[in-house]
Amino acid sequence: MPILPPARAGDPVAAIDTPALVVDLDAFERNLDLMANAVRGSGLALRPHAKSHKCVEIAQAQVERGAIGICCQKVAEAEVFVAAGVRDVLVTNEIVGTGKLRRLATLAHRATLGVLVDDAGNVAELSAAAAGAGTTLDVLVEVDVGAHRCGVPPGEPVAQLAVAIAAAPGLRLRGIHAYHGAAQHLRTPAERRDAIAGAVRAAAASKAAIQAAGLRCAVVTGAGTGTWQEERDSGVYTELQPGSYVFMDADYGRNALAADQHHFEHSLFVLATVMSVAVPAQAVVDAGLKALAFDSGPPLVYGAAGLEFTKASDEHGVLDVAAAARPPRLGDRLWLVPGHCDPTVNLHDWIVGVRGGTVECVWPVAARGALG
Amino acid sequence: MPILPPARAGDPVAAIDTPALVVDLDAFERNLDLMANAVRGSGLALRPHAKSHKCVEIAQAQVERGAIGICCQKVAEAEVFVAAGVRDVLVTNEIVGTGKLRRLATLAHRATLGVLVDDAGNVAELSAAAAGAGTTLDVLVEVDVGAHRCGVPPGEPVAQLAVAIAAAPGLRLRGIHAYHGAAQHLRTPAERRDAIAGAVRAAAASKAAIQAAGLRCAVVTGAGTGTWQEERDSGVYTELQPGSYVFMDADYGRNALAADQHHFEHSLFVLATVMSVAVPAQAVVDAGLKALAFDSGPPLVYGAAGLEFTKASDEHGVLDVAAAARPPRLGDRLWLVPGHCDPTVNLHDWIVGVRGGTVECVWPVAARGALG
Repeated sequence: MPILPPARAGDPVAAIDTPALVVDLDAFERNLDLMANAVRGSGLALRPHAKSHKCVEIAQAQVERGAIGICCQKVAEAEVFVAAGVRDVLVTNEIVGTGKLRRLATLAHRATLGVLVDDAGNVAELSAAAAGAGTTLDVLVEVDVGAHRCGVPPGEPVAQLAVAIAAAPGLRLRGIHAYHGAAQHLRTPAERRDAIAGAVRAAAASKAAIQAAGLRCAVVTGAGTGTWQEERDSGVYTELQPGSYVFMDADYGRNALAADQHHFEHSLFVLATVMSVAVPAQAVVDAGLKALAFDSGPPLVYGAAGLEFTKASDEHGVLDVAAAARPPRLGDRLWLVPGHCDPTVNLHDWIVGVRGGTVECVWPVAARGALG
Repeated sequence: MPILPPARAGDPVAAIDTPALVVDLDAFERNLDLMANAVRGSGLALRPHAKSHKCVEIAQAQVERGAIGICCQKVAEAEVFVAAGVRDVLVTNEIVGTGKLRRLATLAHRATLGVLVDDAGNVAELSAAAAGAGTTLDVLVEVDVGAHRCGVPPGEPVAQLAVAIAAAPGLRLRGIHAYHGAAQHLRTPAERRDAIAGAVRAAAASKAAIQAAGLRCAVVTGAGTGTWQEERDSGVYTELQPGSYVFMDADYGRNALAADQHHFEHSLFVLATVMSVAVPAQAVVDAGLKALAFDSGPPLVYGAAGLEFTKASDEHGVLDVAAAARPPRLGDRLWLVPGHCDPTVNLHDWIVGVRGGTVECVWPVAARGALG
């Protein structure tokens, strides 16, 4: 049984069934334009990360504004976007295992497909998969520029993998992936600047090591919504891959910004309904762990002073109501700004786009649950 | 584009694409039998909670073993199970809003449908919806027996709502809902026993108040996987609604059990693949926040001493590898016991059932994402 959309185009906002994932289209489009304009003319390419939205219509809106393609994290995500017509996808992840690599290599018949490596054995596996499918895969070496998750250390280890890639049939060495995930949520501009300065040095050293091996390093890709201006202005990066800027979740909202840094707006909400007010000084909404991600803290209650989302269980969210606040009534609808947009979007089958009090569009979250 | 199953019946376990939600069918069936046998002959009814598994095949296996029906939390879940043939569903939640109530009341044409109330205004809404649909809804008063989430205080406030329900056309007063969610994960048997003793007193006082108002309180329902033996033996409860016992997640596994308490087995796993070993003393798997719930802590790495799941990002899980442990290799597959089963199941479209090294069945998680 498919999950039915919580609204139809033309419905008033008041008719949206809850809980629902809702996008304020005006704010969303301003976010898209702000990023596109800030990268245009810089000489860098914009390749937004589609793991944040998992939505074909949003990827298309990004490409229409000049993005050269998108990033994905999973082969199954790439399959969704290529099927929808996206012609250039970078899987910003290591892909392991014969079955998955066969799918990845096959997909390269229909789009430019890139992938990361941080292991020499994986280079051989990738090459065999490309040979089997009769395609060519773009390959980038993942460099550990500070996040200490995946990636080889900067410099010589990067060059060694680059040499192996360049020598492997079916693979095309494109450059390096130098994403500093841990830097994105450092709270002050100075902390983020320092962290990215280190990433830039690591990326530059890695590029130099590849060139010293007689190879070309055309692409240096990375950056997220927290730091993209640093990478843009680094003189080393060639491509930016922010994702969350389209939505701006509560956690990114906690980053302090310098005067010259761009402000994105909250455009993504989980619309929820008050379903119980029986316990004094609290209100319970119909959105809990299955409608919102809590890894980066609870959602903010938008435009409702004195209401604090304090506790979630599977299907319930408990809000503390301050003594001075107007107590919510049964049936009241609240707009929640998710703590973390990516895993919140992945809980929903539909994104409801609203403008001026009316539902304008309902987009499938086409790559929701595309885990493999 | 539908999410394809990660395996097919007959595949060897080694062929399951990862990350995948996998059930060990032997352990799962022992769990089902253990609960069914422990309730049979007690005079109580077993109405397992389907919010844990969201799977029609599992609900059917429960009914085949004597369950009188199931619990759901959402109207959209109830719609899935009623469409699949389940004939008795209790929505253990307050349902608010004209649209949702219309759906709930309409569903009562095809099954016995129960719902909770903790608000007099909601009683009138429910009655209007039943009248509109031409059906009768079973209604239970939710009593706050200690969780302080939804529900009215025990005793007289319960009786007042019961009187309103009994007088409302289209509604049939069935009794009270007295679930103590906060007690389920208290770690010692004594703490859980004390908490449920309080819930039993609250339930008994509420039942007495209803009877003192000249009404019948046929059903006293509640209990979960952490405390069900207490409610079973209370002399007050008539119906038990445990859910997680079918899977036994890592968090329930942390409950200490008394000698006379039943041990359920871990039957649910997220099967993951090691995709990076580039950073020393750690391994990265392909399952993160979008494949596992972390609200009750990280997953356990099953049967792999010295590996600890320490950090998750959207699509990555980072494992610390102890100095004495055998270091995982790229492509190794690990069995992760989810911290919390309910929201983990909700992240997956398929449950892969395995026995003796072979995939025996692949069940859709039919009510995954049924939020509304």
